[in-house]
Amino acid sequence: MATPRIRLIVLVAGLLSAAASVGQSIPANVASGAAALRDRALDGELAWEIVESLTMEVGPRPAGSAADRAAVAWAVDTMTRLGFSNVHTDAVDVPHWDRGTLELRMTAPYAQPLVATSLGGSPGTPETGIEAPVVRVESLAALLELTQAELEGRIAYVDHVMERDRSGSGYGVSSVIRACAHVAAAERGALATVIRSAGTSRHRFAHTGGMLIGGAPAKIPGIALSNADADILTHAVNTGEQVSVRLLSTARDLPPTQSANVVGEVPGSGELADEIVILAAHLDSWDLGTGAIDDASGVGIVLAAAKLIMDSGERPRRTVRVVLYAAEEIGIYGGRQYAEAHADSIPRHVVGLEADFGPGRVWRFSSRVAEEALGLVDELHALLAPLGIERGDNEGFGGADLGPLQRQGMPVFDLSQDGTTYFDYHHTADDTLDKVDRDDLNQNVAAYVTAAFVAANIEGDFGRLPVTTGQRSCPK
Amino acid sequence: MATPRIRLIVLVAGLLSAAASVGQSIPANVASGAAALRDRALDGELAWEIVESLTMEVGPRPAGSAADRAAVAWAVDTMTRLGFSNVHTDAVDVPHWDRGTLELRMTAPYAQPLVATSLGGSPGTPETGIEAPVVRVESLAALLELTQAELEGRIAYVDHVMERDRSGSGYGVSSVIRACAHVAAAERGALATVIRSAGTSRHRFAHTGGMLIGGAPAKIPGIALSNADADILTHAVNTGEQVSVRLLSTARDLPPTQSANVVGEVPGSGELADEIVILAAHLDSWDLGTGAIDDASGVGIVLAAAKLIMDSGERPRRTVRVVLYAAEEIGIYGGRQYAEAHADSIPRHVVGLEADFGPGRVWRFSSRVAEEALGLVDELHALLAPLGIERGDNEGFGGADLGPLQRQGMPVFDLSQDGTTYFDYHHTADDTLDKVDRDDLNQNVAAYVTAAFVAANIEGDFGRLPVTTGQRSCPK
Repeated sequence: MATPRIRLIVLVAGLLSAAASVGQSIPANVASGAAALRDRALDGELAWEIVESLTMEVGPRPAGSAADRAAVAWAVDTMTRLGFSNVHTDAVDVPHWDRGTLELRMTAPYAQPLVATSLGGSPGTPETGIEAPVVRVESLAALLELTQAELEGRIAYVDHVMERDRSGSGYGVSSVIRACAHVAAAERGALATVIRSAGTSRHRFAHTGGMLIGGAPAKIPGIALSNADADILTHAVNTGEQVSVRLLSTARDLPPTQSANVVGEVPGSGELADEIVILAAHLDSWDLGTGAIDDASGVGIVLAAAKLIMDSGERPRRTVRVVLYAAEEIGIYGGRQYAEAHADSIPRHVVGLEADFGPGRVWRFSSRVAEEALGLVDELHALLAPLGIERGDNEGFGGADLGPLQRQGMPVFDLSQDGTTYFDYHHTADDTLDKVDRDDLNQNVAAYVTAAFVAANIEGDFGRLPVTTGQRSCPK
Repeated sequence: MATPRIRLIVLVAGLLSAAASVGQSIPANVASGAAALRDRALDGELAWEIVESLTMEVGPRPAGSAADRAAVAWAVDTMTRLGFSNVHTDAVDVPHWDRGTLELRMTAPYAQPLVATSLGGSPGTPETGIEAPVVRVESLAALLELTQAELEGRIAYVDHVMERDRSGSGYGVSSVIRACAHVAAAERGALATVIRSAGTSRHRFAHTGGMLIGGAPAKIPGIALSNADADILTHAVNTGEQVSVRLLSTARDLPPTQSANVVGEVPGSGELADEIVILAAHLDSWDLGTGAIDDASGVGIVLAAAKLIMDSGERPRRTVRVVLYAAEEIGIYGGRQYAEAHADSIPRHVVGLEADFGPGRVWRFSSRVAEEALGLVDELHALLAPLGIERGDNEGFGGADLGPLQRQGMPVFDLSQDGTTYFDYHHTADDTLDKVDRDDLNQNVAAYVTAAFVAANIEGDFGRLPVTTGQRSCPK
């Protein structure tokens, strides 16, 4: 998961268009079929094997890298081996940002090396580096109140401590700081921005993540400090002495290149076969960890769920399409490309489920469907409830990669993973296989297969959503 | 704490010499004085302030570095400010090893960067690096069974998983692997040794630590992998394919230099004033973390305990001497220098207490005293018991820096910290202030002040130990 989950501006640009078949109830045979797959999923091995294989044999796979290409080849091989139909790649133009090396040291009032990392898309420093006094604020609002005279020639330090909770809500504020602090700081003449990591780990990992909104290049470097190192810098500021840091970064953009969305299907049968239930995860990862929770887990969950449907003995009525998206982290390139390339068929995408919030147990089922379909969704929830899943509201997010489809009217389901520890690992070097619990992963597969099987086999659908345009911009 | 805690060979070279005053009991006024300081310690601020100051304002302070010199200056300033007497430095010749940079990548059967770090004292690689197949074993014994033909031109990988327990006993096996695997591997023609970290962290930190025994230089690089990265390498080995890694390290020895033991006293009063109760910790740290648990905590504990005695309203009968040792991590240079420089006065060191196992709560009180003093030690234990401290045996270790004094006959006390999580942080970048719990730290101060106050104020002493010579050697 890459981007701020809060929508800064949402413009409602269309209205609901309901189909005649919206909201019919779940037949008993579909319910029992879903329940059988749900229970089978809990003892599965496949999701774990996929997460293990992708993290151990491909590892970190940032967009545009050689490992990204290896991941695409891995995905094609894996889907083919598992028996998916219509396995293919759709080329995606992607940026190729290189982290390079980073050195950050406090130089006054005393010397200390600091553990930090460049934010995704950050430019580097001049070859000779930057050394400048630090100006500390605790929020983006406080940064916006600073004047040119206060920031000119200095380094802005935004010291906001991310809050931990199950829904990951603290990431909203923190990721907006990540994306917007450098804009405000650059406008006021700052030389760089340093933020406390948008993460909850008390271990000494700096947390990367995209710093660009809307693809506009950043004017100054953006750097994240581990929580422990933010403590060190804050301690120094609190002495009242002038605090300076020295920064040397070789981060840079390499020439743009290509990656690919990797697609495979469990084909439908009969008159609804050209309708699509889409299962989404992203194939790329940040470069620091092996991308186990973000998002090999999602890849494992959706492939294992689709494989259970494939092996259920009967073809589903609708086509279940798995899309492993390219270049999500650096700006949802695969998700946007898919929606553009498949614009004509978006109305045939009856619902989307994305898995991109780690392998924590699903605790809530939210939806974003036409209102007439809410009864149907409640029936579906009854099949999920034995997994310990609450019914949420109808304001579901749907996921970053499915966002472009959702904004074009596709309903989405949110199977909300417990994110209590997600931001301890997310976007850090510590995102490795050992953070994934097999039982929790299987509970996810059970939830996804239940929802996908029902969506693929019922007569009715979930209507359409209003068409919206999700523009993002930073507060001024 | 730096070195293997198991003694590979111990030669008994002397016999017990008991003094007339050994083992007299603790007078009521001494017991009540100790209990009062013990209880006062639990609400103290000083130990925490010291740990905070040393970690935040000096930070990592490896032997021979500029920060090591800053730490010595910090210690002199701090002891002087606290009112210690006879504050001075004793110069210590120290090696100056520089970690440089390290790059370790798996190159076959697939490409993966690996998180690793050089072991202390490791030489670097040739400038062009090393690329070679990996031979994995699970123990030092298994490595010793390999032949020249099996290791020549290869990289030995010792994949032993350290066990977690309260006493830190798993570190014995793991640190012997760290110190001895490279010797066996080099003898068999290996190009380098890679070990799974001698640590219990499941976070992605590689664990450094000295790799030299007896100061002999290493012939080949020694590298530690984080546990997660050892999992990656082992997974690759288990595929049955040939596994190769590429290693490039610029680690090197810089010219030897000087550091210093920093000494300060709470002077005794009266006829026992020339006898010494020594409180020890080490001032240096590894370079990766800020040395909060290893060993700023020890520095805080012993300084705060001595300060409580200083402020008790009466001078102790014996002198309480705090020694903050130099260059412990890289080979106990300060501890050995002290014993040599103070050889004449070792008989006047009546007992030693070292704090070098982190800030976990003290759970056991072991001793290593003359047998006639065991009754006295049991009385002392009664004063420690309210802190939740068990009585251990009379086979106490005494600590690395006090080892040279103990082997010359000085009795020692072990106030054993709970080490359940110690090796999650020890010798890693994750050894930072936030891992220290204030209440646990104060419980330590309470235990140390109790024992030191009693030792400094009773008429009798703890006898003398047999003189031994602690030679270390690696198994062949």
